[in-house]
Amino acid sequence: MMQQQKAKLTFLGTGTSSGIPMIACDCEVCRSADPRDKRLRAAALVEYGGLTVAIDAGPDFRAQMLRAGVHHLDAILLTHNHKDHTAGLDDIRAFNLAERHPVNIYCEAYVEDTLRREYGYAFAEQKYPGAPEWHVHRIDGTRPFTVHSNANEEVLSWERGFGYHHLPPQSDADATIEVVPIQGWHHREKKLSVLGYRFGNIAYLTDIKMLDSEAEFDKLKGVEYVTLGCVKIGDHHSHPSLQETLDFFARVGAKESYITHLSHQLPCHEEFAAMLPEHVHPAFDGLVIG
Amino acid sequence: MMQQQKAKLTFLGTGTSSGIPMIACDCEVCRSADPRDKRLRAAALVEYGGLTVAIDAGPDFRAQMLRAGVHHLDAILLTHNHKDHTAGLDDIRAFNLAERHPVNIYCEAYVEDTLRREYGYAFAEQKYPGAPEWHVHRIDGTRPFTVHSNANEEVLSWERGFGYHHLPPQSDADATIEVVPIQGWHHREKKLSVLGYRFGNIAYLTDIKMLDSEAEFDKLKGVEYVTLGCVKIGDHHSHPSLQETLDFFARVGAKESYITHLSHQLPCHEEFAAMLPEHVHPAFDGLVIG
Repeated sequence: MMQQQKAKLTFLGTGTSSGIPMIACDCEVCRSADPRDKRLRAAALVEYGGLTVAIDAGPDFRAQMLRAGVHHLDAILLTHNHKDHTAGLDDIRAFNLAERHPVNIYCEAYVEDTLRREYGYAFAEQKYPGAPEWHVHRIDGTRPFTVHSNANEEVLSWERGFGYHHLPPQSDADATIEVVPIQGWHHREKKLSVLGYRFGNIAYLTDIKMLDSEAEFDKLKGVEYVTLGCVKIGDHHSHPSLQETLDFFARVGAKESYITHLSHQLPCHEEFAAMLPEHVHPAFDGLVIG
Repeated sequence: MMQQQKAKLTFLGTGTSSGIPMIACDCEVCRSADPRDKRLRAAALVEYGGLTVAIDAGPDFRAQMLRAGVHHLDAILLTHNHKDHTAGLDDIRAFNLAERHPVNIYCEAYVEDTLRREYGYAFAEQKYPGAPEWHVHRIDGTRPFTVHSNANEEVLSWERGFGYHHLPPQSDADATIEVVPIQGWHHREKKLSVLGYRFGNIAYLTDIKMLDSEAEFDKLKGVEYVTLGCVKIGDHHSHPSLQETLDFFARVGAKESYITHLSHQLPCHEEFAAMLPEHVHPAFDGLVIG
């Protein structure tokens, strides 16, 4: 059996759907000069087993790829179908041009349904030249899945005035990683399925009010780093309260735990960090763990 | 007859769909240190007759509103239905919260059809709490239309755990402006309708390969400032070449003409500016005209 590889995770964004600062808001958090209080929409970059994978692609996707200097991307894993996690997918066109491959997208079936509705032009038989080129792979949330490098994806060849031709793969190199989906729900009433993802020693979860069942905790056994989204201290209909977040972290028992998807309803970063137990931290944009 | 009012236009973004720099690109333009070569996706803010109006709301909408310090927005006018002009509409939620009004959106019928498909959750009968609140007004591109201030829009009242209640307008103040749509096409084959907009002395056009007919030029008579989108010097299937752009400007005869929607296929800002005839300029993010 292969030894467990170490993953590295960069927080590309740590803000809730409106980001921090929120447009037209003059609250203390939105006016903070601390760069850690400037939060793009929640997303992460994971480097693992030789592959580079983004989790979610919200409206800040371009800004996040530029800021992190990402020149190569094997795949995007989507947690769920909300706009703050999917609105930037049109910008994968740059990777199509730079890498001459479609981008692999991994998500649940209902998320693909949303993409087909919201990005109809990228799924059309007759696409207009330069429309996004991606391959959607449906995840069964109950079992681990394999993410492939894009090296052995089909090759895109641009023809002026026509668009892309799809050529057969030109490499046999099929680097892969195994990812463990963690099944959760955005609301207590199990209204919207959300997946967390475990890459070896790191598990990234956000927008999860509750796990699907006790069995999901087994999938988190032995992680060194874990994240969970939390937007406010008190009760919230679709995100865990701070207490629920801390209970989750205590139960998982990782070496270090990180709160992401923060809103301006939480205190400024420094004040919030001081409120938290040892080994629990607010994440911030650009933070690297693992 | 009312004297023609002066408009003021701020370029919120002047880049083509991928922006400049483009992700994963190391070309000279994308590596330029000149801040004028950093281009968010094309959009504009117009202040006219006491109203504040955004033209288009691409993926950079939040970044653009924050950078321009916009705390009040009466309406968004959409030129057409492409993602680089619509992907940021979810972020109008901040204005709903700050101003307690729905945001007025003006667009052609086919653009509304796209919004209903791509933002289904914002048009749903049973919306989830905090989903965008907007009123879509369909534009007939053949005649001027009136944009209303949001002061006399219905009032949004937030109830925790429920979402917004819609209350009757609390003001009779109905400030309005008249906007003249300019009918154009994204392709020579008249494949996709795109509207330009004239506000008194300023006309903003982008993504228009050709006007619908000679009659559209009459609507531009007497403008002092005019813009047109151009992505490259040579021929392009859906944007004017530089020569077509310059011919358009010469025919309109405005005092000053501005190129927007630029791509990295054009030279760096300074070099490009030096190539252009007198009174024709590349726009840049943050430039104010009028």
